[in-house]
Amino acid sequence: MADCVFCSIVQGKIPARKVYEDTMFLAFLDIAPSNPGHILVIPKEHHETLLDLPEAICSKILEVVKKVASAATKATSAEGFNVMVNNQAVAGQLVFHSHFHIIPRYKRDGLKHWGRKDIPGQEMESIHKKIVSFI
Amino acid sequence: MADCVFCSIVQGKIPARKVYEDTMFLAFLDIAPSNPGHILVIPKEHHETLLDLPEAICSKILEVVKKVASAATKATSAEGFNVMVNNQAVAGQLVFHSHFHIIPRYKRDGLKHWGRKDIPGQEMESIHKKIVSFI
Repeated sequence: MADCVFCSIVQGKIPARKVYEDTMFLAFLDIAPSNPGHILVIPKEHHETLLDLPEAICSKILEVVKKVASAATKATSAEGFNVMVNNQAVAGQLVFHSHFHIIPRYKRDGLKHWGRKDIPGQEMESIHKKIVSFI
Repeated sequence: MADCVFCSIVQGKIPARKVYEDTMFLAFLDIAPSNPGHILVIPKEHHETLLDLPEAICSKILEVVKKVASAATKATSAEGFNVMVNNQAVAGQLVFHSHFHIIPRYKRDGLKHWGRKDIPGQEMESIHKKIVSFI
């Protein structure tokens, strides 16, 4: 897609530190890493968010994520990793070509996890019913 | 698996606010939500982390995540959502039965995204080479 930085990387018009590539997927180092070894895995096809990814991509992308995450944690001696997919600007999505973040984790790396919100039981019940009605 | 809270939920020994269930997967409201509508999607089979999930699970779980995330965002009028998989304690994993978090997002919900670390170009090159050597 024109004006998509990830499509431009796929097409070789913009350079990237690629770590994995096959016919459907590409993985490369994030240029704005939250930790050393932070990698993005993308489908080569342009789709905005996870909800737009067709089943043919969804059924295969996690095998690529596993392969790349395993290599990244070994290479950086990380003790674990997060996988994150941000969907829409409010969720922190900056590039609207769906991508999976792989973030290796280290003790005292300063990355803070989101805490718990206190939601009253009655509200939880109401949310529960409403979600079920949309399934 | 004995002593696994998620296996106990699958077996019906511990209650949960279930929103979706099929032969392989279960989705239910997180009892410690970061936002209203925070849901966990789990495979019924016990596997510790994403790296342990067999291909039969990886190839299907994202379709469940999409279905549930779509319902959760509609039901809560969210403007987006995050999907997160935390692997190992250092990455914030609390229950060692692999699970996918779906977190609906709202403007001014107070959830802070991880920032960028400045990693010198030479170190990025070295990390890049090392990860490629482990692929």
